[in-house]
Amino acid sequence: MSRGIVGPEIERLIQLLARLPGLGPRSARRATLQLIKKKDLLLAPLAAAMAEALEKVVVCRVCGNVDTVDPCTICRDPERDRSVICVVEEVGDLWALERATPIRCSYHVLGGTLSALDGVGPSDLNIASLVERAMAPEVREVVLALNATVDGQTTAHYVSERLEGASVEITRLAHGVPVGGELDYLDEGTLAAAFKARRQL
Amino acid sequence: MSRGIVGPEIERLIQLLARLPGLGPRSARRATLQLIKKKDLLLAPLAAAMAEALEKVVVCRVCGNVDTVDPCTICRDPERDRSVICVVEEVGDLWALERATPIRCSYHVLGGTLSALDGVGPSDLNIASLVERAMAPEVREVVLALNATVDGQTTAHYVSERLEGASVEITRLAHGVPVGGELDYLDEGTLAAAFKARRQL
Repeated sequence: MSRGIVGPEIERLIQLLARLPGLGPRSARRATLQLIKKKDLLLAPLAAAMAEALEKVVVCRVCGNVDTVDPCTICRDPERDRSVICVVEEVGDLWALERATPIRCSYHVLGGTLSALDGVGPSDLNIASLVERAMAPEVREVVLALNATVDGQTTAHYVSERLEGASVEITRLAHGVPVGGELDYLDEGTLAAAFKARRQL
Repeated sequence: MSRGIVGPEIERLIQLLARLPGLGPRSARRATLQLIKKKDLLLAPLAAAMAEALEKVVVCRVCGNVDTVDPCTICRDPERDRSVICVVEEVGDLWALERATPIRCSYHVLGGTLSALDGVGPSDLNIASLVERAMAPEVREVVLALNATVDGQTTAHYVSERLEGASVEITRLAHGVPVGGELDYLDEGTLAAAFKARRQL
């Protein structure tokens, strides 16, 4: 749309939408047209919702989750099991676990992984606050629910070392065949891990 | 996210984003997290861009295009060839043609297609204004660039009948093999049309 057949305001909306994950230039144009077509039903409420999120969304000072209250809804919840802290890389991982498991544990969002390449060191992540939380007497277990990537596992290793002073059990998620997965499509590392960790029927 | 672990404002933003074409519930969550993570770089400018679009975007009273000025940039452009009116279903089609062709014609956006099923009749589309424009002495050709669907072709047929009173040439886009397309993957209708319309090398 660079030939200037639409006003700069529309062009700017397309460019900003194209920066959302899952939307490229083409789908950003389609989304923009949809927004313009449904001005009252979609564009107006979305603009309002964004303005409200901009104003209200905060990062929880306890666990690093995002919410509109601080501490977040999870950290305030009296029903949550505070003896288990589940450590995740990003807020999206926390949401994914909440959708998947009925275990009502508490969380800690690191905010990323250690990465020498990207220059992310321990002080760039919420590790110190995790160690501090893990020192509390009620904490019994820290689950390192980090991605099974090189960076994720490096970070898990580092975090487990930092937690050595705390008297907590440190666990990680199980590796294995995804539920519904077909062996033929799985990588060898996963298959080997699943075989090694086989369980009695 | 229905278990209420995020504030209603975040939930609402996810639900609204999920209504954009190309985004489902999962990608809307990812987009929301991205927006929250890049509050200053993405959420704030996007909220502002939407508010601005909401305020400024108008439908061109001449051709039905959307823009921030009325008449739109294309209708104001003195370099445009006003002897050719290219009729499209939606604004997205206009944008697609503008990206594709260097022919600087003028346009007319019908706003959809006739559809008995959906109850869309001639008076729901910008057909009367097209007929009026086509009556102007400078108009020489009307290109019916409608989708090659049943509804699109029904509409093209109807529009061409309505244009009978105007002394204009009525044309349609060529059917044929898409550039880069493989014959083996093409449907029989397209192949038959391409064969029938074969050209001398």
